[in-house]
Amino acid sequence: MGFPLKIKANLHASEGRLLFLLLLIPLISYSQHRIRDYGVEIGVLKPGPLNAITDVPGVKVGHFSHIKGGNIRTGATAIFPHDGNLIQEKVPAAIYVGNGFGKLGGYTQVKELGNLETPIILTNTLSVPTAVNAVIGYTLAQPGNETVRSVNAVVGETNDGYLNDIRLRDLSEEQVLYAIKAADTGRVREGNVGAGTGTVCFGFKGGIGTSSRILPEKAGGYTVGVLVQSNFGGVLQVAGVEVGKKLGHYSDSFKYAPDGSCMIVVMTDAPLNARNLERLAKRAMLGLARTGGIASNGSGDYVIAVSTAEECRIPYQSDDLVQTVPTLRNQAMTPLFLAVVEATEEAILNSLFAAENMTGHKGRTVEALPKEKVLQMLKEAGKIK
Amino acid sequence: MGFPLKIKANLHASEGRLLFLLLLIPLISYSQHRIRDYGVEIGVLKPGPLNAITDVPGVKVGHFSHIKGGNIRTGATAIFPHDGNLIQEKVPAAIYVGNGFGKLGGYTQVKELGNLETPIILTNTLSVPTAVNAVIGYTLAQPGNETVRSVNAVVGETNDGYLNDIRLRDLSEEQVLYAIKAADTGRVREGNVGAGTGTVCFGFKGGIGTSSRILPEKAGGYTVGVLVQSNFGGVLQVAGVEVGKKLGHYSDSFKYAPDGSCMIVVMTDAPLNARNLERLAKRAMLGLARTGGIASNGSGDYVIAVSTAEECRIPYQSDDLVQTVPTLRNQAMTPLFLAVVEATEEAILNSLFAAENMTGHKGRTVEALPKEKVLQMLKEAGKIK
Amino acid sequence: MGFPLKIKANLHASEGRLLFLLLLIPLISYSQHRIRDYGVEIGVLKPGPLNAITDVPGVKVGHFSHIKGGNIRTGATAIFPHDGNLIQEKVPAAIYVGNGFGKLGGYTQVKELGNLETPIILTNTLSVPTAVNAVIGYTLAQPGNETVRSVNAVVGETNDGYLNDIRLRDLSEEQVLYAIKAADTGRVREGNVGAGTGTVCFGFKGGIGTSSRILPEKAGGYTVGVLVQSNFGGVLQVAGVEVGKKLGHYSDSFKYAPDGSCMIVVMTDAPLNARNLERLAKRAMLGLARTGGIASNGSGDYVIAVSTAEECRIPYQSDDLVQTVPTLRNQAMTPLFLAVVEATEEAILNSLFAAENMTGHKGRTVEALPKEKVLQMLKEAGKIK
Amino acid sequence: MGFPLKIKANLHASEGRLLFLLLLIPLISYSQHRIRDYGVEIGVLKPGPLNAITDVPGVKVGHFSHIKGGNIRTGATAIFPHDGNLIQEKVPAAIYVGNGFGKLGGYTQVKELGNLETPIILTNTLSVPTAVNAVIGYTLAQPGNETVRSVNAVVGETNDGYLNDIRLRDLSEEQVLYAIKAADTGRVREGNVGAGTGTVCFGFKGGIGTSSRILPEKAGGYTVGVLVQSNFGGVLQVAGVEVGKKLGHYSDSFKYAPDGSCMIVVMTDAPLNARNLERLAKRAMLGLARTGGIASNGSGDYVIAVSTAEECRIPYQSDDLVQTVPTLRNQAMTPLFLAVVEATEEAILNSLFAAENMTGHKGRTVEALPKEKVLQMLKEAGKIK
Repeated sequence: MGFPLKIKANLHASEGRLLFLLLLIPLISYSQHRIRDYGVEIGVLKPGPLNAITDVPGVKVGHFSHIKGGNIRTGATAIFPHDGNLIQEKVPAAIYVGNGFGKLGGYTQVKELGNLETPIILTNTLSVPTAVNAVIGYTLAQPGNETVRSVNAVVGETNDGYLNDIRLRDLSEEQVLYAIKAADTGRVREGNVGAGTGTVCFGFKGGIGTSSRILPEKAGGYTVGVLVQSNFGGVLQVAGVEVGKKLGHYSDSFKYAPDGSCMIVVMTDAPLNARNLERLAKRAMLGLARTGGIASNGSGDYVIAVSTAEECRIPYQSDDLVQTVPTLRNQAMTPLFLAVVEATEEAILNSLFAAENMTGHKGRTVEALPKEKVLQMLKEAGKIK
Repeated sequence: MGFPLKIKANLHASEGRLLFLLLLIPLISYSQHRIRDYGVEIGVLKPGPLNAITDVPGVKVGHFSHIKGGNIRTGATAIFPHDGNLIQEKVPAAIYVGNGFGKLGGYTQVKELGNLETPIILTNTLSVPTAVNAVIGYTLAQPGNETVRSVNAVVGETNDGYLNDIRLRDLSEEQVLYAIKAADTGRVREGNVGAGTGTVCFGFKGGIGTSSRILPEKAGGYTVGVLVQSNFGGVLQVAGVEVGKKLGHYSDSFKYAPDGSCMIVVMTDAPLNARNLERLAKRAMLGLARTGGIASNGSGDYVIAVSTAEECRIPYQSDDLVQTVPTLRNQAMTPLFLAVVEATEEAILNSLFAAENMTGHKGRTVEALPKEKVLQMLKEAGKIK
Repeated sequence: MGFPLKIKANLHASEGRLLFLLLLIPLISYSQHRIRDYGVEIGVLKPGPLNAITDVPGVKVGHFSHIKGGNIRTGATAIFPHDGNLIQEKVPAAIYVGNGFGKLGGYTQVKELGNLETPIILTNTLSVPTAVNAVIGYTLAQPGNETVRSVNAVVGETNDGYLNDIRLRDLSEEQVLYAIKAADTGRVREGNVGAGTGTVCFGFKGGIGTSSRILPEKAGGYTVGVLVQSNFGGVLQVAGVEVGKKLGHYSDSFKYAPDGSCMIVVMTDAPLNARNLERLAKRAMLGLARTGGIASNGSGDYVIAVSTAEECRIPYQSDDLVQTVPTLRNQAMTPLFLAVVEATEEAILNSLFAAENMTGHKGRTVEALPKEKVLQMLKEAGKIK
Repeated sequence: MGFPLKIKANLHASEGRLLFLLLLIPLISYSQHRIRDYGVEIGVLKPGPLNAITDVPGVKVGHFSHIKGGNIRTGATAIFPHDGNLIQEKVPAAIYVGNGFGKLGGYTQVKELGNLETPIILTNTLSVPTAVNAVIGYTLAQPGNETVRSVNAVVGETNDGYLNDIRLRDLSEEQVLYAIKAADTGRVREGNVGAGTGTVCFGFKGGIGTSSRILPEKAGGYTVGVLVQSNFGGVLQVAGVEVGKKLGHYSDSFKYAPDGSCMIVVMTDAPLNARNLERLAKRAMLGLARTGGIASNGSGDYVIAVSTAEECRIPYQSDDLVQTVPTLRNQAMTPLFLAVVEATEEAILNSLFAAENMTGHKGRTVEALPKEKVLQMLKEAGKIK
């Protein structure tokens, strides 16, 4: 995860902080406690070794966290389904729109053709076009893509405009490319990082969260990984405990409730076609519901689901009219549905557990989930022994 | 709620039981304990006086429970948005497909035109055409409909084929008409009744359940009512308590999991257009998720949402090209979303609390939710003081 | 087209009519002139040997024409994608809704699961439930289906209520079963037959029409067959010639224009998945447009597309989680799109050329397309040499 | 339509040509012959006075044509539904996806909320993010929008990469802003202009085209205007005459056919809600079909439909929960459907009639429609007296 000099040279204002953050990464990563570390098990299925989207073989995640001065609290997160040239080896994909108040780029082509041809980028609402430009530039410049004249960049966002002076649109293509180049397998940083740097969830500091599930062998033994950018509202439930209600920490302004959004990325090595990926994506919203989310009017809630199964990759061009691919039967989908519900719930909770207090635009502070209180509630409810 | 002789005369086998049930209605209604009766509050909003779909002014519900011999355990439930001639005074409506493994009649026309022109009927999978025929007959015969040549009957179903010998298709048009004619305002019977007579939910006896929410005045003061026919699976959660997991009462056969379905009917007096009704319907699935539902592959999960607001009714014919109607603004939808999530969760729980042991086809027995155990769990989790 | 006594008398057994019809087929078939017989070529692709949906290997079509007394002018048409047990060997399928003012049964399940498990039945609007019941009965009774408890019958309709006293719902399950049993490969009768017995198209007598196209070898050599039940309006164009405008034969009542519907069935032996079948179905509406159709408000325009490719069949149950199937690549779809546009246009024109004057309900007469005039116009436009 | 100095200063290479073009506008506009000028009437409804999208009161169109050196042949076209602050006074809108192989920005939010809050921009495939950024900048900078933190820019595209060196992404935000600022009511330039500068249609030079229809008074007297960016393929038909077939000018490469796209913008002063706008948008594809379009696999075909009716505008914020708006009844939609079919067909033909030979990237030349030959064919077919 080296830091390319050329990019560094282009990062005018935030480079110092960036280096500082880079130094902190190991400390942060290992000091973060996740909800499962406290003995809370979400659901009935087992997580993978990292309990992260990167448990799906080949999946890579990269962040660029952009914290600059008092007002910029944003970033970008890049997720890759595999290590190859994505436009040359597309992957089956689908996007489910939980609530379409968002600016997701790339939706209609994924829907029509059933595939993904770029890394997925998450960022803030007004930086979507910058990220799309970055992905186009990245793709055009890749060796082998010299004749490519069309790129369907999939870029999602949530609005971090409470902590981030979003109208400045202070995120550069180079910074997005940094997230792309930083993408790696292995452990995934959570909380105030990448596209989650400035987000707010249930009135607490939200951010990036991830989780995974592994199916029993008789159900195929597949892995389902989820990564979220949590920035939405509702009445928080943690492992079924009504934390938001107990804390009185939800909007009673029922007229125009404060809104938010959630981007959810789902990866699986199960060989799914686009139709069943869309069905899988749809279930992620059920996981969001279990945290107390309601997909409020102003929420842009999108789920992007991808099959990384090698034998399902779609070549850019081929002399063959027909491609023969393995496809999971409809009847085998149910365990995957359960897996994505559980992993989405846990990913959102992980984003809340990892996020820390953040002060940003106009001196506003959003506090982290009061973990001590929440853990006490979980104990009282018998969720923690 | 008189019992028309003509229909009675047509009910060959079940009429005795029917009369018997009719006598029992008051006793059953008042002896049924609902989850809220134990002090468990689902969510943060207040229910209406009946905590039922009939809290929405004008809404009527009627059941026909068909229990015959050892093998027939089925029925029909009719829901009316208002008391008038529905095809002459249509109501704005939308249907959201949570999972489309079902036989719902009427979907595409509701989607295209944004309205409902018949009562909604719920029944079993193979009796949908019989119920459609009943609704067509009912509509053609209504005074004022002499020139009607097209009827879009909305009929939903779940598959009660475990307790009911469904292949016999032993439900007559007259029996469906009985449910239509029995429809009334006021208290709604729940559990093993009407279309819920033979259904199974989370491996326990399911059935009909209902609940409602009333919005605060500043959010419009509207009522949202929900009625469910619960027949689906997953890992049961009651008010966030992992009952299914604690009881080990969920399918570990992850290969081809036992499936099911859920029909959800949502009524509201808020003046919503079809687009916002579809958004409202979509949120009902989030309420289902909070009970542990996952919309498994074989589940036919549909939500039918209707606005009963008088000023929004759509005349069958009109000399006017334009109709001027009040419409709730997008930004005012969020409280309704919260309401439907909470009411759906509670309606499903009510269906489980009301349902009783049932023995049916091939001598199979499905037991009711073990309420004592569940209440004990709820106490331990602090949900009941 | 006499009406055999035995069938007329409630149709307990339909064999008499069947034999009678069989004798008539050659006469009828050879006396019907189709538009291509006059030298008019629609489009640039070649039709198959029969220029019919039955050019797709294995496809079978059966009609029951119900002409009774002065008022009943209706019927049913059954289309089979293959000769086997359809619920045991489902076929990939999709339905595109051109305009949803219709009563099509089976839509949501086809959409969700991507397959068809019954023959397709076309009939009149108010007889859909009867046809669904017939298909359920047919399927439950088939050897091998003893444990089947769910049947997703796909039944489409158009409203023949101008010539047919549709409110009588005078079509029995037995009559629908007759169409099912009459289904056969080979030549397809067109015009006032089956579900097209009482339909009206562009103000002329409509009915059943069919056509096909065969792709060049380099495009895969696949066959695309189309069958329509034409009952819609607009301003008729025949091979691009503005017949409706020249004849002044279109509604100038622009306020509430007379409506209609069109059911379109598309079969192909190309190995398509449900996603690409939906795209194919969508293009059939472009063929309808080329005849002057506009999918008016009251039109129920549906396209059901099916792949008959043997290697794509979906077993009802299987021990395998995964099925490996050949699938045509997205990039190879364009020639199929062109084929379905051309075949749909020609199938509609064939329905008009085959239909004959019909007098029905309330003594109303709908005249056939004035072929002599139309042919003269085609000559003047240089479409016929 | 002043030319702001600041923008001019930012236009490095093309400014000279720009000024040159500006001088030419009057000459070009008046010298262009449109298909109707030759006596060819498309359809049965009357066009508006300009036969252009600007016949809809308040609608404005602006172009920026970017022709630079040998290789850049692209541009942007901006369409405004009204003259006010669009995000403060949104308009009901819908987008129909004819074929989703495109990069349209803004789709999901329009679908969810049913409104449009920015001008519509058309440009080339790889310049969509630049145009989105331009629209965001334009909106944030508008007086009154100081607190706006979310902008849903609707930007469509077709791929002009045959004549334009599209990989250079040589279109700046300033150039897009020029199109925005150039937008005006009145006559609309067609052909090789704005977003149509480098497009190809049916193998001939395509571009911008426009047309309109006015409904009879009894149908409401509304105006429907259409503007297209034509860049697609198929087998060209001009007023029903098979020009493509007669000229042999269509792809016989049936394997991977050359693709293209079509952006279609529909404006009407009829008071339509989003649901009926989507239905209206859907019919535009039927107009495309009548020119021989087939929505090939690689085509990104989108229709954006907007109601400009003043009483239907949607305020950004409001203290009222409810808005009371006039809405055209479903039954009154049919004449609008006919209007949009006709206007779309004619707009596409106008784009072909207006476009002129263009040489661009790699010295490639695309020739204009051979008008003399086509007019001769139209005469022979009796379309021109």
